[in-house]
Amino acid sequence: MSEHTNKQFHTDLETTRSLFLEMGGLVEAMVQDGMEALSTGDLTLVDKVREREKEVNRLEVEIDERISLLIARNQPTAVDLRLLLSVSKMLTDMERCGDEAEKIAKMARRLHESGGRYEPVVELRHMANFVTAMIRDSLDAFARLDPVHAAQVVRNDKEVDKEWKGSLRHIITYMIEDPRTISRSIDLIFIARALERIGDHAKNMSERVIYMVRGDDVRHTGIKNTERLARGEAAEEENEI
Amino acid sequence: MSEHTNKQFHTDLETTRSLFLEMGGLVEAMVQDGMEALSTGDLTLVDKVREREKEVNRLEVEIDERISLLIARNQPTAVDLRLLLSVSKMLTDMERCGDEAEKIAKMARRLHESGGRYEPVVELRHMANFVTAMIRDSLDAFARLDPVHAAQVVRNDKEVDKEWKGSLRHIITYMIEDPRTISRSIDLIFIARALERIGDHAKNMSERVIYMVRGDDVRHTGIKNTERLARGEAAEEENEI
Repeated sequence: MSEHTNKQFHTDLETTRSLFLEMGGLVEAMVQDGMEALSTGDLTLVDKVREREKEVNRLEVEIDERISLLIARNQPTAVDLRLLLSVSKMLTDMERCGDEAEKIAKMARRLHESGGRYEPVVELRHMANFVTAMIRDSLDAFARLDPVHAAQVVRNDKEVDKEWKGSLRHIITYMIEDPRTISRSIDLIFIARALERIGDHAKNMSERVIYMVRGDDVRHTGIKNTERLARGEAAEEENEI
Repeated sequence: MSEHTNKQFHTDLETTRSLFLEMGGLVEAMVQDGMEALSTGDLTLVDKVREREKEVNRLEVEIDERISLLIARNQPTAVDLRLLLSVSKMLTDMERCGDEAEKIAKMARRLHESGGRYEPVVELRHMANFVTAMIRDSLDAFARLDPVHAAQVVRNDKEVDKEWKGSLRHIITYMIEDPRTISRSIDLIFIARALERIGDHAKNMSERVIYMVRGDDVRHTGIKNTERLARGEAAEEENEI
C-alpha cells in the first residue's frame, strides 16, 4: 500500500468504526425509549423508536457495504481484517437488538391501547437498564479495544438469564392468580424475552471484541476460558464446548 | 495468483461450501428430531439434538476460521469475496437455528417429564415442517446459486408469521379455557416462537444468497423488490425501507 492509500484506508476504517458506534448509540436509545413508552404510556416514543429502527437498518447496509469495499480494495493485514470481519458480525447483532427494541415499543403500544397497568413492569425496567448497560459496555470495549471489559459483559449475560427466569416465573404466577390477565401477560413475557435476547446479542458482540483484540474465538468456550483468553492467558480444558 | 494457488484456493472454497452444507444438514435434522421428541416423548432424541448442537458450534468456529484465512491469504476477487462474506453471515443464522432447535428439544423434555399431551402440538408440527423446508430451500438456493429460489424462501417467511400468530391465538385460548395448563402452554408458546425464529433465520440466509449472486443487498427492501432484484431486474420505489 502506498502511503496515501494507507492513510485513506485508515480514515475509512475510522469512519466505519464511528458509524458502528453511532448505530449502537441509536439502538441503546431505542431500548430506553421502548421501555419508557411501556412505563409511561407516552406513545410518541413508539413512533420515535420505529423511525430510528429504519435509520439502524440503513446504517447496517451502509456499513456492510463499506466493509466489503475496504476488504476488496485494500487487502488489509490480519489485524485490520479481523477488525472488519468482527464489525461485520457485530453489525448483525446490533441490528437485531434494534429489532427487539422495536418489538418492545410495539407491545408497549398494544398494552397501553388495551388499557391497564401491570405490576411486573418494574422488574422489567430493571432488566432493561441492565441490558442497555451491556450494549453500552460492548460499545465501550469495542471503542477502547478492551477485551477484559468485554469479558465482563459475557459474564453479565448470566445475570440477565437469571432475571429472565425470575420475571417469567413472576408473570406466570400473576396469570395463574388472575386468568383475565393472560393475553396481556403474554405480551409482558415477550418483552422480557426481547430483553433477554438483547443481553445475548450484547454478549455476542463482546465475544467479537475479544476475538478482534486477541485473535481467539471465544464462542462456545465457557465463561472461565473466555476470561482467561481475554486477559491473554491460555485456555484450560473445561469440557464446556 | 499463480495457477497452483488459484487451484488450491478453489478447492478450499469448495471445502468451505461443503462444510456449511454439512452444518445445514445437521441443523435441519435437529429441528426434526426436536419436534419428534415433542410428539412422541422419545427423549433419546433430545440427547441426540444436544450432541449435534456441539458439532454445529464446532463447525461454526471452524468455517469462520477458514473464511478469515482464505480472505487474508488469497485476496479474493469481488465475486469470491462476496461468497465468503455471505457464508460468514449465513453461518451465524445457521448456528442460531441450531440453538432454537436445542431449545425446542429441551422444552420437549420438560413437557414430557411433567406429563400430559397437548392438543396444539399438531399445529406446531406443521409449522416445523414448513420451517425445516425453508432451511433446506435456503441451502439448495445456496448450493445451486439460485436467487429466485431464495426469494421464494423470503416470501414463505410471511406464511410462517401468519402460522405463528395463529398458533399463539390458539394456545392462548387453550390457556384461558383451562388455566391449569398455563405453565405448560407457555412452553408451547416458546416452541412456536423458536420455529418462527428459525423461519426468520432461513429468510436472512436466503437474502444473503441473493446478495451473493446479484450483488444487491435486499435486506429491508420489501418482498416485491427482493423478488425483482433476485430476477436481476431493477428495484422500484416502494417506501418499504
